[in-house]
Amino acid sequence: MSWLDLPAGTGFGPENLPFGVFSTPGTAPRTGVAIGDSVLDLAAATADPVHATGSLNAFMAQGPQAWAALRQQLTRWFTDQRHRGSVEPHLMPRADVTMHLPVEVADYVDFYSSETHAANLGRMFRPDSEPLTPNWKHLPIGYHGRAGTVQVSGTPVVRPAGQRRAPTDEAPTFGPSQRLDIEAEVGFVVGTPSALGTRVPVEDFADHVFGVCLVNDWSARDLQAWEYVPLGPFLGKSFLTSVSPWVVPLAALESARVAPPARDPQPLPYLDDGAHPWGLDITLEVRLNGELISCPPFRELYWTAAQQLAHMTVNGASLRTGDLFASGTVSGPARDQRGSFIELSWGGKEPLPLADGSTRTFLQDGDVVSISATAPGPDGTRISFGEVTGRVEPTP
Amino acid sequence: MSWLDLPAGTGFGPENLPFGVFSTPGTAPRTGVAIGDSVLDLAAATADPVHATGSLNAFMAQGPQAWAALRQQLTRWFTDQRHRGSVEPHLMPRADVTMHLPVEVADYVDFYSSETHAANLGRMFRPDSEPLTPNWKHLPIGYHGRAGTVQVSGTPVVRPAGQRRAPTDEAPTFGPSQRLDIEAEVGFVVGTPSALGTRVPVEDFADHVFGVCLVNDWSARDLQAWEYVPLGPFLGKSFLTSVSPWVVPLAALESARVAPPARDPQPLPYLDDGAHPWGLDITLEVRLNGELISCPPFRELYWTAAQQLAHMTVNGASLRTGDLFASGTVSGPARDQRGSFIELSWGGKEPLPLADGSTRTFLQDGDVVSISATAPGPDGTRISFGEVTGRVEPTP
Repeated sequence: MSWLDLPAGTGFGPENLPFGVFSTPGTAPRTGVAIGDSVLDLAAATADPVHATGSLNAFMAQGPQAWAALRQQLTRWFTDQRHRGSVEPHLMPRADVTMHLPVEVADYVDFYSSETHAANLGRMFRPDSEPLTPNWKHLPIGYHGRAGTVQVSGTPVVRPAGQRRAPTDEAPTFGPSQRLDIEAEVGFVVGTPSALGTRVPVEDFADHVFGVCLVNDWSARDLQAWEYVPLGPFLGKSFLTSVSPWVVPLAALESARVAPPARDPQPLPYLDDGAHPWGLDITLEVRLNGELISCPPFRELYWTAAQQLAHMTVNGASLRTGDLFASGTVSGPARDQRGSFIELSWGGKEPLPLADGSTRTFLQDGDVVSISATAPGPDGTRISFGEVTGRVEPTP
Repeated sequence: MSWLDLPAGTGFGPENLPFGVFSTPGTAPRTGVAIGDSVLDLAAATADPVHATGSLNAFMAQGPQAWAALRQQLTRWFTDQRHRGSVEPHLMPRADVTMHLPVEVADYVDFYSSETHAANLGRMFRPDSEPLTPNWKHLPIGYHGRAGTVQVSGTPVVRPAGQRRAPTDEAPTFGPSQRLDIEAEVGFVVGTPSALGTRVPVEDFADHVFGVCLVNDWSARDLQAWEYVPLGPFLGKSFLTSVSPWVVPLAALESARVAPPARDPQPLPYLDDGAHPWGLDITLEVRLNGELISCPPFRELYWTAAQQLAHMTVNGASLRTGDLFASGTVSGPARDQRGSFIELSWGGKEPLPLADGSTRTFLQDGDVVSISATAPGPDGTRISFGEVTGRVEPTP
C-alpha cells in the first residue's frame, strides 16, 4: 500500500500518521509525522511555517477541515509512488531524533472514569464507605491538574518529598514519598477552542478533539492520602505527568470505535451518548523494567471522552487549543489489567511477583515504567500509540 | 511629592505603581502603570517592546532586579519635576481606557487558608465531622483551578448550569445553579520561574512573586456540593474566576507586612516562616449592587502566600511565569467580615438584610458584586488594589 519499506506489523503505517515535535542536533524543534521507523519532517516537506513553531498548537487551532486536508495529503504522499521523490528526502530514522513535548498544554484535566479503578481506590482510601461515591454514576468525576508539569516521555521522575501521615502516626512527617505510583491513562488533546459561556455537546466531540496520546499520571499515594480531603489531589500528583510524544489523530481511530458499557442509571440528557458512542478499543501495556505486568483495557471505561468533554463544558467553561484531558487510570477487573501499583499490590498488602523472583509494591529508585498501547486500524492493521516512559530518580 | 495633581487620598500614588494591560479604541493592548486617575503608557514612555506584548509576562520573566530598576525609574519620573515634560505626554485618563487580563495565566491554584472560612464551610458541607479536616493546620490546602477561565474584572458572570442534588432528592437534576456565590480572595502572580525537581523555600518568596491582585472565585455551591467528593471542586468553580486589572508590585507592600497569626501545632520546618513573616494588612471590601456588605481582613489568614509557595513546590513542581495562586476566601470571625454569601447567609438559612429592606441568600441575575481592597503604604499613604467586579447574567 505504501512505497515505503515498512517493518512488518508496524503500528505506524499510513493508516496512523501521528503528529509529534522533534529535533536533531543543532536544529529547532518542529512538527513531524511518524511513518514506520521514520519521521517525516513536516516543516520541510510542506514549507508551511505552522509546522515550524515547536508545538502542534498552531496547526491544531486551524480546526478539523485543515486536519482532514493534511491527513489526506499525507496519505497520498505515502501511498502514491509519484510523490516518493519529493517526500523521501524529508524522512529520517526515528532513532536519530529527539522528541519534545508535542503540545503546549493549556489546561490539564484528569478524569476518573474506570469503574474498576474508582471502586478499587474507594475500597482502599475510604474502607468504611461504599466503594463508589453517590455521584460516580451520574457524572464523570474529574479535577484540574498542573499543566506546567506535563512533560514528554523520558523526563526523569524525581521522587517527590512531602508530608505524609501513616495511620499509626499522631502527626505528619516530611520526607521522600514511600508510595510512588503510576496511573496508566489515555489523554485527549483539544484543537478547536470554544467560547466562554457555551457548551460542547457530545456530538461535537470530533470537531474539537484533535488527537489521542498516552499519559502516565505519576502519583505519590502517601502524600495524596494525607492532603486530598476536602479539595482533592494536589502535591501527590503535581510533580510530574508524562505524555507520549506521538499524538494519534482521532481520525485514525474510526476502526477502534466500540459501544461503551451500558449505564445504569441512565445519565442526564447532556451526557446521553447513544447516538455518538465513543468507546475506543485501545489496549494498554504496562512494563516495569521491561517486564509486562498489566494490560489495562480502555474499552471498558464507563464514561467516554465525548461525555467527559460535554461535562467539562456544560457549565460554560471554555476550551483552549492545547487543553489536555485524561481518562483517569484504566483498570480492568482482572489483576493483570490494573493500571496502578496501588491496585496491582492492593495498597501494598499483596506484593506483585516479578519474573526475577523479586516482588514490588510501589516504585523503587531506578525503576523504569513504560506504557504502550495499540488499537485496531482499518483492514486488519494496527494503530500504535508508541509509549510513555520514565525512570525513577531519588529525591535530591 | 509628585508633580502630578493627584486626587486627595488616592490609593494610586507614587508609592503604589501597579501594572496593568490597557488599550484605547483602535490601539493594541499594552502595559500601563496607574498613577492617580491616570495611566502611563509604559510601552510609549519607555519604547521598550517588552511592554508592548499585551501581557505582563515578558516583563515579569525578567526577574526581581528588572522589576526594582523599573520601579525606581518610575518613582523618579513621577516625583522629579524635570521628567514632567517627557512623561506627561504619555499619561491618559484611566476612565478613557479599556483594561485587559494583565497576565497570561499559566497554572492557577486556589488555596483555602482562612481558618474562619474553612471552619465555616466544614460546618456546612460536613456537619457530622470536625469543622477543620485533620490536615488543615499542617499544610496549606489547595487545588488547581481552570487557568483558561481566569478573566479580567468586568467579564459577565453567566450563571452556570449543571448537576445538583438537594438532600431531599433521590437523583440529581440539571439546571441553572441556584446557589451562585462569590469568594473574595487575594491573588499572587509568579514572575520568576523555577526548575522542575527543585523547591522554592519560604525565604525566596519575593524573588519569585511579582505582584498581588484581587480575585473573585465565583462558585456554584449546589454544583460543588454534589461533585466535590472525592477529587475536589471542578465545575462548581471552573466557569469563571475574575481578577482585578491592576497588579500591585510586592515591593509596594513593604509597609503592609505584619506578623501572621500564631500557629499551633508548629508547622514542619519547610513551612516555618518565623524569619520571613509575610502576613499582609490588606482589608477587602465586598459590595453588592453598590452596598458595602463585608470587610474581610486578609491579615488574619493562617497561612501566608510565602508558605503557600513553599508548599506548592516542595514536591519539586516547577513554577512558570504567569502562575497565579490565590489565598482562598478571606473571612474574619465577625459576620460582616465573611467573604462569601454561603457564609454571610449561613448556607441560605439566615438571609442577609440589605439597605433597601430586601434580603439575599445567593446571587440573583442582575446582581453586581465588586471587591476592592487597600493596604497601608509608607508615610501614612494608602495602597489601593482597585477592584474586581462582575454582573450576573442568566443562563442562556
